[in-house]
Amino acid sequence: MHSSRPALLTDHYELTMISAALRDGTADRTCVFEVFTRRLPAGRRYGVVAGTTRLVELLQDLRFDETEVAFLRDTGVVDEATATWLSTYRFSGDIDGYAEGELYFPGSPILTVTGTFAECVLLETLTLSVLNHDSAIAAAAARMVTAARGRTLIEMGSRRAHEEAAVAAARASYLAGFGFTSNLAAGARYGIPTAGTAAHAFTLLHDDEPAAFASQVAAQGRSTTLLVDTYDIAQGIRNAIAVAGPELRAVRIDSGDLAVLAQHSRELLDSLGATETKIIVSGDLDEYAIAALAAEPVDMYGAGTAVVTGSGAPTAGLVYKLVEVEGRSVVKRSERKATVGGRKTAVRRHKPSGTATEEIIVSQGTPDPQPNDRPLQRPYVSAGKPVRLPTLTESREHLRQCLISIPWEGLKLSAGDPTLPVTVVGA
Amino acid sequence: MHSSRPALLTDHYELTMISAALRDGTADRTCVFEVFTRRLPAGRRYGVVAGTTRLVELLQDLRFDETEVAFLRDTGVVDEATATWLSTYRFSGDIDGYAEGELYFPGSPILTVTGTFAECVLLETLTLSVLNHDSAIAAAAARMVTAARGRTLIEMGSRRAHEEAAVAAARASYLAGFGFTSNLAAGARYGIPTAGTAAHAFTLLHDDEPAAFASQVAAQGRSTTLLVDTYDIAQGIRNAIAVAGPELRAVRIDSGDLAVLAQHSRELLDSLGATETKIIVSGDLDEYAIAALAAEPVDMYGAGTAVVTGSGAPTAGLVYKLVEVEGRSVVKRSERKATVGGRKTAVRRHKPSGTATEEIIVSQGTPDPQPNDRPLQRPYVSAGKPVRLPTLTESREHLRQCLISIPWEGLKLSAGDPTLPVTVVGA
Repeated sequence: MHSSRPALLTDHYELTMISAALRDGTADRTCVFEVFTRRLPAGRRYGVVAGTTRLVELLQDLRFDETEVAFLRDTGVVDEATATWLSTYRFSGDIDGYAEGELYFPGSPILTVTGTFAECVLLETLTLSVLNHDSAIAAAAARMVTAARGRTLIEMGSRRAHEEAAVAAARASYLAGFGFTSNLAAGARYGIPTAGTAAHAFTLLHDDEPAAFASQVAAQGRSTTLLVDTYDIAQGIRNAIAVAGPELRAVRIDSGDLAVLAQHSRELLDSLGATETKIIVSGDLDEYAIAALAAEPVDMYGAGTAVVTGSGAPTAGLVYKLVEVEGRSVVKRSERKATVGGRKTAVRRHKPSGTATEEIIVSQGTPDPQPNDRPLQRPYVSAGKPVRLPTLTESREHLRQCLISIPWEGLKLSAGDPTLPVTVVGA
Repeated sequence: MHSSRPALLTDHYELTMISAALRDGTADRTCVFEVFTRRLPAGRRYGVVAGTTRLVELLQDLRFDETEVAFLRDTGVVDEATATWLSTYRFSGDIDGYAEGELYFPGSPILTVTGTFAECVLLETLTLSVLNHDSAIAAAAARMVTAARGRTLIEMGSRRAHEEAAVAAARASYLAGFGFTSNLAAGARYGIPTAGTAAHAFTLLHDDEPAAFASQVAAQGRSTTLLVDTYDIAQGIRNAIAVAGPELRAVRIDSGDLAVLAQHSRELLDSLGATETKIIVSGDLDEYAIAALAAEPVDMYGAGTAVVTGSGAPTAGLVYKLVEVEGRSVVKRSERKATVGGRKTAVRRHKPSGTATEEIIVSQGTPDPQPNDRPLQRPYVSAGKPVRLPTLTESREHLRQCLISIPWEGLKLSAGDPTLPVTVVGA
């Protein structure tokens, strides 16, 4: 259903580097690239890995057809030899990394790509595009899930994001624990439950609000949600119950002071005998607004702009760095204080109770084993072949368990340091 | 080359509304929907329309194939009658709007969609996804172009955005006046000039920096750009000129205090006789960082994260609202103070000197003509058929002229009110 070709979704310089490396013979050197972040977005206590499975699926289609090769050759991006190399390109290396839904912290090696320089450097831009976007959304969404305290969240932000980013945002939000998305492509591609009933336009289209409600109930039954704030909310609720009866599943309020309106609406619904009718609120909700509604009689939250834009952190700041060449650790000098070269192996250390205490990362070696260590890396691609990957539902459950395992401070919405200390042991 | 199908890139509720409206007979009512914003992002003085041509191209492919219809029917999103309606869906209405590259302000009717309720409401989500994303990027990019004061900008943020959003961001940045993008798909799809030479990984791959530079110059010639900050910048510049000679086109610095480094680099290059070698700087540049480098000997800026994430405003806040049903002006009551229903006609008023003074918007009528008025709306789609649209180059020039026409305060980067007052005259 989604057939965009990924070959050219990359930066010009990846291909000029390949051209030069093919010419000088370094293209075949065995390299290790790692994806990590130097810092979390300001005040964030954890990151959430998301997008890796989506990336691996895109990489299966990463081949250059004749048109693409011709474009690159004709515009002088690559020379003839590189054009020939591209026309038979298949990634034949290994990709290992943190599971989707895993937490990460500054320095966590969330993806490790091993192969020749040329085949690995070609993946840089696409890898970062997918992981930076999806992980940013997942982290914001996870905070909203925490703020919602078990109440259901619906992702409805498609209109505030690029049309394809919207689909990926729906996936990342669901991974983070949202219950539904409004995005139909996300339903079709990933099997995510979709939801939606009507907008204000539907009410305005009709001669009056009762006519609109009657039409909606006729089409969707009483298990629908009626949007009651087009004109006057109290009258809207009376109209809704008059039309649908107290068996109406839910009303939605999309504007105004949601705390006050939720209370008034609950009282009014109860007074009309609609004690089981749910209240859904939406309208510029972020994790803080959701948290502020915790004591109100709200049953479900619709989140839009904030979740699809990462709630202030629209990109995750992940980088893709060369850390090993032919077994030799390499590092850009200006980063030497902060960055350690070499392929890393990571474990998360836990108390016997199961609470995570720290992340241990060892360059060109393995951490000394401790009884409650959990290895954080798993294979994604082996010798060019994708291995069996967890389902989205499994990744969702993995994140839920990870969030239970961290110290409780990690779930606070307020700004703070990373929840777990990370120790990086150099080679 | 890009063949993603747009049919399901939409919200669930658009289709449930169509289902209900088809059932009750309101689906065929003639409606007018308008796209506008209630407010600009905090402190922004203007918005930039971008994405409309891209939207119209997507709409040409907005058809539901058998698989898509089956998904919607089998999951219960639509009933049989709606499934049948969708299987022959073609938009047959009109779309008019502001030109790409046009400035807009709160209330500006940047897109007007006319047709039956069902055919128009179906376009809501996709329309907003495209316009909200592309306009957000274009507005941020335009501020960077102003800050760069005629120096060339390269967009290199693909890795910090969803992989398809990155292509649209490259397009919007070019429309706003950037000179190049790193994104190859943007080059292939839109003919935007692409640029790129090498990353730090290329230097680290080689046994030493001179070997890397020699390889790059051998492959790309002296008209390349050498990245000189992998180890020590001064030594990097010496190595670059030693390898390429003073004819080297440019060096790039991607880290550190760019103001100081640019000065030192210029002095060093000049002392080596490389007086014509350009200096390109990059690394977390936004409009403020670019403005702060105005006095430094910088020749070109590379902007990444800030431009592709809208520099603090990743979405434009545009909404798609029903304003007319069968000629009757409609408006959601809670907005009555701020919003006027009815189809709007907009002109920009100017002094005889050409300086814009205000925007006049009349609901269900036309503004009294004045000598220096410029109509702001143009046809995009007429009776379902796209009309000839401006090229990206023409849109780029249009924005350049628009930015010249507004009062100079409008170009200030500091927070302020919208540059032009907007008068909306109700029906």
